[in-house]
Amino acid sequence: RVNGDRLWDSLMDMAKIGPGIAGGNNRQTLTDADAEGRSLFKKWCDAAGMTMGVDKMGTMFATRPGTDPGALPVYVGSHLDTQPTGGKYDGVLGVLAALEVVRSMNDLGIRTKHPIVVTNWANEEGARFAPAMLASGVFAGALSLDYAYGRKDPEGKTYGDELKRIGWLGDEEVGARKMHAYFEYHIEQGPILEAEEKQIGVVTHCQGLWWLEFTLTGKEAHTGSTPMNMRVNAGLAMSRIVEMVQAVAMENQPGAVGGVGQVFFSPNSRNVLPGKVVFTVDIRTPDLAKLNAMRAKIEAEAAKICEAIGVGCSVEAVGHFDPVTFDPVLVDRVRNAAERLGYSHMNIISGAGHDACWTAKVAPTTMIMCPCVDGLSHNEAEEISKDWAAAGCDVLFHAVIETAEI
Amino acid sequence: RVNGDRLWDSLMDMAKIGPGIAGGNNRQTLTDADAEGRSLFKKWCDAAGMTMGVDKMGTMFATRPGTDPGALPVYVGSHLDTQPTGGKYDGVLGVLAALEVVRSMNDLGIRTKHPIVVTNWANEEGARFAPAMLASGVFAGALSLDYAYGRKDPEGKTYGDELKRIGWLGDEEVGARKMHAYFEYHIEQGPILEAEEKQIGVVTHCQGLWWLEFTLTGKEAHTGSTPMNMRVNAGLAMSRIVEMVQAVAMENQPGAVGGVGQVFFSPNSRNVLPGKVVFTVDIRTPDLAKLNAMRAKIEAEAAKICEAIGVGCSVEAVGHFDPVTFDPVLVDRVRNAAERLGYSHMNIISGAGHDACWTAKVAPTTMIMCPCVDGLSHNEAEEISKDWAAAGCDVLFHAVIETAEI
Ligand SMILES: NC(=O)NCCC(=O)O
Ligand SMILES: NC(=O)NCCC(=O)O
Repeated sequence: RVNGDRLWDSLMDMAKIGPGIAGGNNRQTLTDADAEGRSLFKKWCDAAGMTMGVDKMGTMFATRPGTDPGALPVYVGSHLDTQPTGGKYDGVLGVLAALEVVRSMNDLGIRTKHPIVVTNWANEEGARFAPAMLASGVFAGALSLDYAYGRKDPEGKTYGDELKRIGWLGDEEVGARKMHAYFEYHIEQGPILEAEEKQIGVVTHCQGLWWLEFTLTGKEAHTGSTPMNMRVNAGLAMSRIVEMVQAVAMENQPGAVGGVGQVFFSPNSRNVLPGKVVFTVDIRTPDLAKLNAMRAKIEAEAAKICEAIGVGCSVEAVGHFDPVTFDPVLVDRVRNAAERLGYSHMNIISGAGHDACWTAKVAPTTMIMCPCVDGLSHNEAEEISKDWAAAGCDVLFHAVIETAEI
Repeated sequence: RVNGDRLWDSLMDMAKIGPGIAGGNNRQTLTDADAEGRSLFKKWCDAAGMTMGVDKMGTMFATRPGTDPGALPVYVGSHLDTQPTGGKYDGVLGVLAALEVVRSMNDLGIRTKHPIVVTNWANEEGARFAPAMLASGVFAGALSLDYAYGRKDPEGKTYGDELKRIGWLGDEEVGARKMHAYFEYHIEQGPILEAEEKQIGVVTHCQGLWWLEFTLTGKEAHTGSTPMNMRVNAGLAMSRIVEMVQAVAMENQPGAVGGVGQVFFSPNSRNVLPGKVVFTVDIRTPDLAKLNAMRAKIEAEAAKICEAIGVGCSVEAVGHFDPVTFDPVLVDRVRNAAERLGYSHMNIISGAGHDACWTAKVAPTTMIMCPCVDGLSHNEAEEISKDWAAAGCDVLFHAVIETAEI
């Protein structure tokens, strides 16, 4: 078993960097806080005897050598970046649990045939730079490096410039590394494990996603002196689209979600009807055909809504991945480890996207989940218990050892 | 008749200060651009032989003395501040036409019994600091100076601090001045005069207004892993309220408007359901009973919408004035002047709020309007013709002379 206290202490130490306003964290991608979190992580990796490599996306790879010089490494990780009002565990648990796996191996004198690489993927959250899982997307060849470097935050700063600015632009080609396997341990971010009173989620699939960024063009006009019949109100069109997305998600129950998290009105003045509204629809389901049908329906209905008001409508897909099926051999290994360790478990589909969704394209991949209180995530109040954290880390430890071979 | 070319040249000179991004202006209240516009205006007033007074709200009063030392002044003005994406004429026309009235009096050697005070009201637009018509509201005793000083822009800067910063905090008590009459000349900002092919709007009334700032409290949660039935989506509630406001305005046709110009999602991240949404509903009608009934209905319906989703809802009235009836004597004087000068004219109700709405509480007040192209305002593309500008200024010139008595 791993050292649950040490894992927890490291989680609490990392949470001191980029504190939020309500007990959580704001350690967004490529901010100064991100740089500080990376330095602390590197310090810990150095202390555990690992050597750090950094690729051109800023992803960090800390290697514990294996006994067979020719064996491909087993990668284990997640991400240290957070939402603007994020929790202390989302992503961080997966990185620090991977570190704990290595620390426990060190404690117990365990050597593996395959090297272990503890990984901190850059820009998983996609809050500052869309899309989410940007670095792993480039790693898997789904997105280009140029595309990634050009992604802009809401202030117009690019990923490439900010990566240089914080000093974490590495020299490794992105995706040059080959993986024997990839494991990611993550909090569920949903309510199922807690409701079912299970300690371990054996993740079999991950939902697919579309992020559809709508730009609606109305006519800026005075809210007081513009008669109702002369308005070309982009905000009204946006509101109808939000309602329609809700309806499309409800029609596709069970097993689908849809919502809008980000909205920009322009000029955003109380007495000006918005001439421009930009917002992003997030839809997900584990069923590929359903996912694409939802997208098609939303785009068609949005076009009708806008046409009826006379509002211009353009849509850009700023994030996408297909539903993922994880590697059956690794999935079984996770289930068996949980069983062997005496932890209650169930199969689960990941509702959120993870870097594992991209690595699954290039390597045998799977995930492990632990419950989180009230299924809450992307909220500073996100919470788990020390025992929950440790149980998943134990399972990770066993599954990784079995895969890396003693 | 006034000098229409000179008026136009001054409009174009002022438009160079705080240029917008699409041919209009961004000279928001208490910005550096506002300060620069004020300095140019002062320079022109000095050159026309007037003396400048400034009150504690930053409103500028340029006096041309009268022949009777005991006679109260006739005030003529509007505002030089603009929307973030504002036009070149909204407000500016009224201030520079008042200046043109004085310049023409100077040219023609006209002396009046009552002094003339060319006035630039501070913070008419309310775009940066709600509510609109803040300084005239304090002048009329409807709002307190402390309240005004504490108003915050979206970055949290206060009116009081910013007024000091730009160097236009005056020493006059706000509202200490007594007015013989107040005239305000403004573009219509709506489509009626152009459609009816009238040069002059004889403004008999002004619509009343409520600005209702809603703060909706939902539950920040992950857009992917939070099942539809566990969402407390403040953005969905906001969308339903926008639609409901539209419906309430439509039910109250003709003669009512309602809409939403400003929306803030929090944390405004693509994969976080908003935990907080703040937005402002703007409703107006010339009918007081209808205005208040609309407000009551909107608040009641919004509460129901929020309750159904489990979203918390609080409402603050951040702007308000009752419908206004302008002074019948002055209204007749405007109509007679238009008639005498041979300009086509019609009675009109102001759709927008104006500083005249507040001065009407403390002095005989009226307004004059000219058409604007496509009824467009609060838009950088706002446009009028030189002839339209001059015609209204002629009417203003005659009505002011008649009121100030030669
Ligand atoms: N795990 C997680 O929250 N990832 C962010 C990408 C997403 O929105 O699913
Ligand atoms: N005239 C004008 O646009 N005033 C701003 C206040 C309002 O919204 O009516």
